[in-house]
Amino acid sequence: MPTTFDLVVRGGVVVTASDVFKADIGIAGGKVAALGTDLEGNRVVDADGLLVLPGGVDTHVHIEQPSSGPAQMCDTFETGTASAAAGGTTTVICFATQMRGGSLKAAVEDYRVAARRARVDYTFHLTISDPTDVVLRDELPTLIDSGCRSVKVFMTYDGIGLDDAQLIRTLAAARKAGALVCVHAEHHALIAYLSERLVAAGLTAPKYHAWAKPTVVEREAISRIVAIAEVLDVPIQIFHVSGPEPAEEIARAQARGMKVWGETCPQYLTITAEDLDRPGFEGAKFMFGPAPRGTAEAEGLWRAIKTGTIGVISSDHAPTRFDDPRGKKVAGENGPFTKVPNGIPGLAARLPLIFHEGVTKGNIELSKFVDLIATRPAKLYGLFPKKGTIAVGSDADLVLFNPRAYQTLTNAGQHHGGDYTPYEGREVTGKVIATYLRGTCVFENDTVVGAIGGGSFVPRAPYAEIEPRGVFPIPFDPVTSTVLEDKPKLAAE
Amino acid sequence: MPTTFDLVVRGGVVVTASDVFKADIGIAGGKVAALGTDLEGNRVVDADGLLVLPGGVDTHVHIEQPSSGPAQMCDTFETGTASAAAGGTTTVICFATQMRGGSLKAAVEDYRVAARRARVDYTFHLTISDPTDVVLRDELPTLIDSGCRSVKVFMTYDGIGLDDAQLIRTLAAARKAGALVCVHAEHHALIAYLSERLVAAGLTAPKYHAWAKPTVVEREAISRIVAIAEVLDVPIQIFHVSGPEPAEEIARAQARGMKVWGETCPQYLTITAEDLDRPGFEGAKFMFGPAPRGTAEAEGLWRAIKTGTIGVISSDHAPTRFDDPRGKKVAGENGPFTKVPNGIPGLAARLPLIFHEGVTKGNIELSKFVDLIATRPAKLYGLFPKKGTIAVGSDADLVLFNPRAYQTLTNAGQHHGGDYTPYEGREVTGKVIATYLRGTCVFENDTVVGAIGGGSFVPRAPYAEIEPRGVFPIPFDPVTSTVLEDKPKLAAE
Amino acid sequence: MPTTFDLVVRGGVVVTASDVFKADIGIAGGKVAALGTDLEGNRVVDADGLLVLPGGVDTHVHIEQPSSGPAQMCDTFETGTASAAAGGTTTVICFATQMRGGSLKAAVEDYRVAARRARVDYTFHLTISDPTDVVLRDELPTLIDSGCRSVKVFMTYDGIGLDDAQLIRTLAAARKAGALVCVHAEHHALIAYLSERLVAAGLTAPKYHAWAKPTVVEREAISRIVAIAEVLDVPIQIFHVSGPEPAEEIARAQARGMKVWGETCPQYLTITAEDLDRPGFEGAKFMFGPAPRGTAEAEGLWRAIKTGTIGVISSDHAPTRFDDPRGKKVAGENGPFTKVPNGIPGLAARLPLIFHEGVTKGNIELSKFVDLIATRPAKLYGLFPKKGTIAVGSDADLVLFNPRAYQTLTNAGQHHGGDYTPYEGREVTGKVIATYLRGTCVFENDTVVGAIGGGSFVPRAPYAEIEPRGVFPIPFDPVTSTVLEDKPKLAAE
Amino acid sequence: MPTTFDLVVRGGVVVTASDVFKADIGIAGGKVAALGTDLEGNRVVDADGLLVLPGGVDTHVHIEQPSSGPAQMCDTFETGTASAAAGGTTTVICFATQMRGGSLKAAVEDYRVAARRARVDYTFHLTISDPTDVVLRDELPTLIDSGCRSVKVFMTYDGIGLDDAQLIRTLAAARKAGALVCVHAEHHALIAYLSERLVAAGLTAPKYHAWAKPTVVEREAISRIVAIAEVLDVPIQIFHVSGPEPAEEIARAQARGMKVWGETCPQYLTITAEDLDRPGFEGAKFMFGPAPRGTAEAEGLWRAIKTGTIGVISSDHAPTRFDDPRGKKVAGENGPFTKVPNGIPGLAARLPLIFHEGVTKGNIELSKFVDLIATRPAKLYGLFPKKGTIAVGSDADLVLFNPRAYQTLTNAGQHHGGDYTPYEGREVTGKVIATYLRGTCVFENDTVVGAIGGGSFVPRAPYAEIEPRGVFPIPFDPVTSTVLEDKPKLAAE
Repeated sequence: MPTTFDLVVRGGVVVTASDVFKADIGIAGGKVAALGTDLEGNRVVDADGLLVLPGGVDTHVHIEQPSSGPAQMCDTFETGTASAAAGGTTTVICFATQMRGGSLKAAVEDYRVAARRARVDYTFHLTISDPTDVVLRDELPTLIDSGCRSVKVFMTYDGIGLDDAQLIRTLAAARKAGALVCVHAEHHALIAYLSERLVAAGLTAPKYHAWAKPTVVEREAISRIVAIAEVLDVPIQIFHVSGPEPAEEIARAQARGMKVWGETCPQYLTITAEDLDRPGFEGAKFMFGPAPRGTAEAEGLWRAIKTGTIGVISSDHAPTRFDDPRGKKVAGENGPFTKVPNGIPGLAARLPLIFHEGVTKGNIELSKFVDLIATRPAKLYGLFPKKGTIAVGSDADLVLFNPRAYQTLTNAGQHHGGDYTPYEGREVTGKVIATYLRGTCVFENDTVVGAIGGGSFVPRAPYAEIEPRGVFPIPFDPVTSTVLEDKPKLAAE
Repeated sequence: MPTTFDLVVRGGVVVTASDVFKADIGIAGGKVAALGTDLEGNRVVDADGLLVLPGGVDTHVHIEQPSSGPAQMCDTFETGTASAAAGGTTTVICFATQMRGGSLKAAVEDYRVAARRARVDYTFHLTISDPTDVVLRDELPTLIDSGCRSVKVFMTYDGIGLDDAQLIRTLAAARKAGALVCVHAEHHALIAYLSERLVAAGLTAPKYHAWAKPTVVEREAISRIVAIAEVLDVPIQIFHVSGPEPAEEIARAQARGMKVWGETCPQYLTITAEDLDRPGFEGAKFMFGPAPRGTAEAEGLWRAIKTGTIGVISSDHAPTRFDDPRGKKVAGENGPFTKVPNGIPGLAARLPLIFHEGVTKGNIELSKFVDLIATRPAKLYGLFPKKGTIAVGSDADLVLFNPRAYQTLTNAGQHHGGDYTPYEGREVTGKVIATYLRGTCVFENDTVVGAIGGGSFVPRAPYAEIEPRGVFPIPFDPVTSTVLEDKPKLAAE
Repeated sequence: MPTTFDLVVRGGVVVTASDVFKADIGIAGGKVAALGTDLEGNRVVDADGLLVLPGGVDTHVHIEQPSSGPAQMCDTFETGTASAAAGGTTTVICFATQMRGGSLKAAVEDYRVAARRARVDYTFHLTISDPTDVVLRDELPTLIDSGCRSVKVFMTYDGIGLDDAQLIRTLAAARKAGALVCVHAEHHALIAYLSERLVAAGLTAPKYHAWAKPTVVEREAISRIVAIAEVLDVPIQIFHVSGPEPAEEIARAQARGMKVWGETCPQYLTITAEDLDRPGFEGAKFMFGPAPRGTAEAEGLWRAIKTGTIGVISSDHAPTRFDDPRGKKVAGENGPFTKVPNGIPGLAARLPLIFHEGVTKGNIELSKFVDLIATRPAKLYGLFPKKGTIAVGSDADLVLFNPRAYQTLTNAGQHHGGDYTPYEGREVTGKVIATYLRGTCVFENDTVVGAIGGGSFVPRAPYAEIEPRGVFPIPFDPVTSTVLEDKPKLAAE
Repeated sequence: MPTTFDLVVRGGVVVTASDVFKADIGIAGGKVAALGTDLEGNRVVDADGLLVLPGGVDTHVHIEQPSSGPAQMCDTFETGTASAAAGGTTTVICFATQMRGGSLKAAVEDYRVAARRARVDYTFHLTISDPTDVVLRDELPTLIDSGCRSVKVFMTYDGIGLDDAQLIRTLAAARKAGALVCVHAEHHALIAYLSERLVAAGLTAPKYHAWAKPTVVEREAISRIVAIAEVLDVPIQIFHVSGPEPAEEIARAQARGMKVWGETCPQYLTITAEDLDRPGFEGAKFMFGPAPRGTAEAEGLWRAIKTGTIGVISSDHAPTRFDDPRGKKVAGENGPFTKVPNGIPGLAARLPLIFHEGVTKGNIELSKFVDLIATRPAKLYGLFPKKGTIAVGSDADLVLFNPRAYQTLTNAGQHHGGDYTPYEGREVTGKVIATYLRGTCVFENDTVVGAIGGGSFVPRAPYAEIEPRGVFPIPFDPVTSTVLEDKPKLAAE
């Protein structure tokens, strides 16, 4: 062991998904080299009275995503990852998105170029909007092998949503190539029908966004993608679960032994449908999909978090500006909800919000907090143990966090490219004091100091978590065309 | 009261869905005029020692249905209703089927012509395969008003299956016009994918029919159509539930208060996937969709019948000949399962099979038997009290049934147009001795005596059972564009 | 058939649990002799515009029950059955109650003497409070054979509640002798503990009655008695289910195929815990056990009624006077809730209340109404088809009911021995116009005309409904000591 | 940081409940002082190629427990903790057991004397068999404050089982004094009844042990204790869950947000009821309570472990000798199952069995394994972070474990006081190479080297996990007599 480390974080309370202990952290070569006491370093940071958390891993981040329409997301990698650093997040998984008719490979290549300006580490989900043979057979395996081991599919949204036949082919290809599939699960045709009917009735204000996407459309879509995953034996994660009713579908699948995991986001724990009904066009600031629900749903989500049905809390950062013709007002000052771009910024607010709602309010323990925002996401997406924990050999991605500091959330504090935060004025306990990426400070004194381009692409190796179970409803693996035994296996047996 | 009736059925034990009592039945003008003792009639039938049941109502019968391919169903109205009479069924609901691109109205008109040769009473479901505006807006309301108060939709099968957007429009139109919707619920794309993969792997024997359509495809589709029905508040019946797993989806909807009802068929209680694996091509005789399951599923179905989750047992009579190039062998002596026409004959076997499996084996009481095969179907489809019971004023549709007679089921005994019955050689307790349609004998001495054209179309008036509940997941009725209250109703409240 | 009947009820709409039809009813020898049209009788009652229902069967009626304490139920057979007649109920099942340390046989004999003054027909449950060998082995079989084919057990209440060992012995003895067991299911020790703690805290007003008996005590007790019944294979009915949470326990047992049935009472559909909190001591008027819940529970009960989990609605008539030192005020003007006698009068209000809440409000159909208040109770307790329906051969127990009449419920209208009704002032649609017992009028023109002693004991023969299933968790029938197969049957198989 | 540690475990793969990483462990003062690389120590142990696990925490161990009958458990603290050390377990929670009529305080004092001979660390559950006021009010709070923060109750077994009133008082006292309650949950009266009936029928062989205790008795008791815990808001752990049916009761409580946790044991994952039916009296070797079930139950338990319903796997080490008149043969060579002492040895086999069945067979990951056998038990019982993990400041309780070593389990290898192991001859992958207690080796080279008396009592401080939630079914906390709000809270709201 070196007697002198590059950097020592001294005297903090280290929190992992399992442990809480006071120790110095010795960092060398950008990695955690030692945990102990009285460590010495070339540089020493005093963490006395602070928690030292593993850098947040946010597995659901929309940054600089190309758009086919006039509305644009307002974060580049430069601004988006500034916001990440400010929020204690050191790794983001963004979405390399195939345009319909286009190449997924090209999309990834373009996206890697753009991402070179990132201030924190990153990797990509592969969003497939057009699962042609070329994409699934030729491009996907190579891209997955190159380290992007997750595929994103949408069950709704024109231009990107897949139909069931496409979902099946895509999930089968993902499993074959060794990728986890993450899913935006909402029933497209019901949303389209309800939207059409509401608009036809002149009900176009932001509040009707929630009417057009009731919980039942989410429950249904989860039930459907679970069925597809069950036949194909593909591990899946359900994105942004909005309440206990959709969570129950996941719990039922888990109880059958399936590899189905749930994610939720801070907005479903803090924002309700009533926010959509704020005066004027303010409600548009709270418009995201699935739509916000109510406080009873938030309570149900906490129960699902405690039982483990939901194991990841990401931001679903998907920002557009509010007072901007390329943002929420793309269809005018009072555009119909169907034309308002979905999505809110949330990267920087994630840790404080979840700490406040979870730990301060007594819903969860400290270690569970770390598990939800760093460890479990890292494990599920193959970033672990490089990311997601504080252990010897892991990247020295660290957050100094003051659990007792009060702060009022403001847009300025988000350090993002947007002109608002839906959490403006919200008071929380817990504050990011400093963020370190591989031993280098990227945020301190309320200032982003991480260099543009300081972040790196993190290729993910194959990992055990997403291996299929080898269990099928029939004695036939349709992905590999293997007959498993010569007897139909029946459901009730 | 007339002192002398046209006909008296004397001394039998009358069974209704609620009662079992010994009485004479006095018939006048084709209707039950009196129940009492020592009734006198111009004709007297001795029913001593026999049960007198209401004529069976079979709400799921494919007869003389036009086909777009080379395979043909083998029953005309003449033969199909002969089989009905022989099986103690006096009312059948057949399917007036729109061809894709064609008119539903024309299909109904053609079908009414064909049905003039029926020997028992009949009415039609309206099968929609192409829900154009013309069909839904112009044709459907008139057809429903004319007495065909049920719409049939398929969620699978090329050429007839509807996608979700079509299902939504069709269900909305059905509700608006006052029709119940009955649903063939299986996930089309999964079946297509599995079939393709099995065939590609050379697995084409009849047994693979069950592999291509595992229970999960049925469970999924029920969950989906329930979600659609929930948003639209449309009462639906799920056809041919094959086991406890899909039944559970129905039970969950019912527990939420929804108007969702389940039907099953004798084949799911008596035939298993092992029958598909009989030597040679014999398995094709047992090929129907959803596919046969196992004995555990049959037991689960009986439990679902007892709790009321499933309330109707119909035949799904859908016969093609076996040894016939227009039947099961349309693709040759060993055609792949994907080319073999689905469906089996079952009209005549329904009552004896259910009596044997249900009453004789102690699964259900006599009144429940009558409820399942006559009363409940009649109520659900608006035929009651004209059909489905023995009460003053009801049609004198009666079955003299010997509960103690043993019989061996044979193809000849089915009196249908087919060349086989899947129940060949099966021994059952219980036998139809005679069948009366509106006071006229149509079957006795093992002989069909009902006249061709003796059956009549039964128009159905609007009926209470299928009225929507007026309950929606959001405060908006999308079918009528009515805002119900100015507050989002959230799932977990 | 006689050309002239003793009595003809002409022109009404006859309602059974399955049918609704217009017919005359011919009555001879106190029985329904014919249903038809234009029947002639020595006497003719005009029922034009009225429903003709089978006489109500109330399977849960406390009348003239001996008391060990100073409080006394206030109805004798004379007054109680007057109330029954006024409420359209022609058969009551009362409770012959063994005193602890006493003989069950003697209790029955005494009770038969008292019951000779009844104005409507009656039979007894056998309430066992002290299951000694003598009672279970010597007395019970004879009493059951004599026609009292149901045993009542309490899981709570000092002096009458049985412990688990006693419950097991009693249920086993009941099954062996061929009786159904009906159960008051609440967790005694929790109620005792909560009562003690509430009283110690000075919380003694009537409203705390509901606090001392939360739903969880009912849920627990049902789960427990179901387990006992499962091991012994004894059919049971759970009395007075108060909401969806306890109903769910019954539904779970039913879904496993068990013979477990649920009963509820009008009070759980119409009275809430808020009534217990009326000013002064008024709340005592609404005190019964299990305690009243809330409107959400009432809605949940209707759902459980619709799905069939709950199939019987009885009154649990258990009246004490309010302003009486032998009634609700036995412990003074403001006695602590623990000292106030439980129970309310309800015999006469049952049909109008259920008709109003059920049929008028659209929760249930007419036939279901009849099933709940007459047919199903009669079937479950072996009174059918003598009681509970209108069919040839059944007792001519008939109710002429005006479904369109409004009435305001009053104490005077209850015709009972009490000084109040909890339904005072409640407005309902539906009114009993006349009641006939075996062809004799016992109530008309708002006046009880049934003779004291006009009612008869109805012995019940063995009946199929309560036969055990022959299914056990282990391959051993402990009641008969029969080894069923030489292999342990395990739960998860 | 000291440049030289007392001891360095070098080069192993450290496993915690969250992390797996290669590091040296520096130990000073019996505690983990550092995790890093190239650490130097006065002594160095080479762990290359081995896993380094936190010392096992076994929270369910019967050692030297006084017996009122002739049968005796065969492990003293000397032999029992030798077995613990051999099995990689460094902390045991044993049972200080009040004799009925006796003092709990005295029992604890006696037990502390006996425990002075322990070779590994220990703490006690407080088993209450006679919850007198003196015990609950005077003794219990002091004992809990002294560090025994868990109370054990039995719902069955003569002489020790509590009735419901006793359970309520005991759980309330435990909550008030700040202790978790762990529960042996089986329905006593059903077991007594079935045992009596089986013995009366001459069915006394060991196999009938499983017949006398079917899963239903466990399901019932869990439902009951959950209800009690719900009313009192007491956190509880359900001991030795034997299959998915009882686990479901726990999952239902957890889904409601309750603090109810499940434990299972290796025997329920590896031994089945068929083992009870081995020739002769061999079955007695596999007799424990709850009884062994089948392979389907074991699979269901793994599912419950994966979803987290069950979070702890302990041994329930409760050994008696087989061929011994004070052991299994206390009632003779073929004593009836009712007289054979329950319980098997299992301390030493726990880690290898769970590693083999869990990790080797692919049911769980390494970190989950550590969580189940060390971390989660330590957290749940207030031993964390002193015990249950490898972190700076924790006790240096370490296990060197070879995950690739095959071994055949033998009785000699158990190092206990018994004359058999139920796992004799079972082949597993994974072997304890060495065990360290606070930095001192207690087991290596297949030899127990830990000193008699080397173990210490571990007092447990109050800890967050077992704090009640403050949620009650009614607005009244009965334990503290606090009115929470002036409105009844109803179940369905």
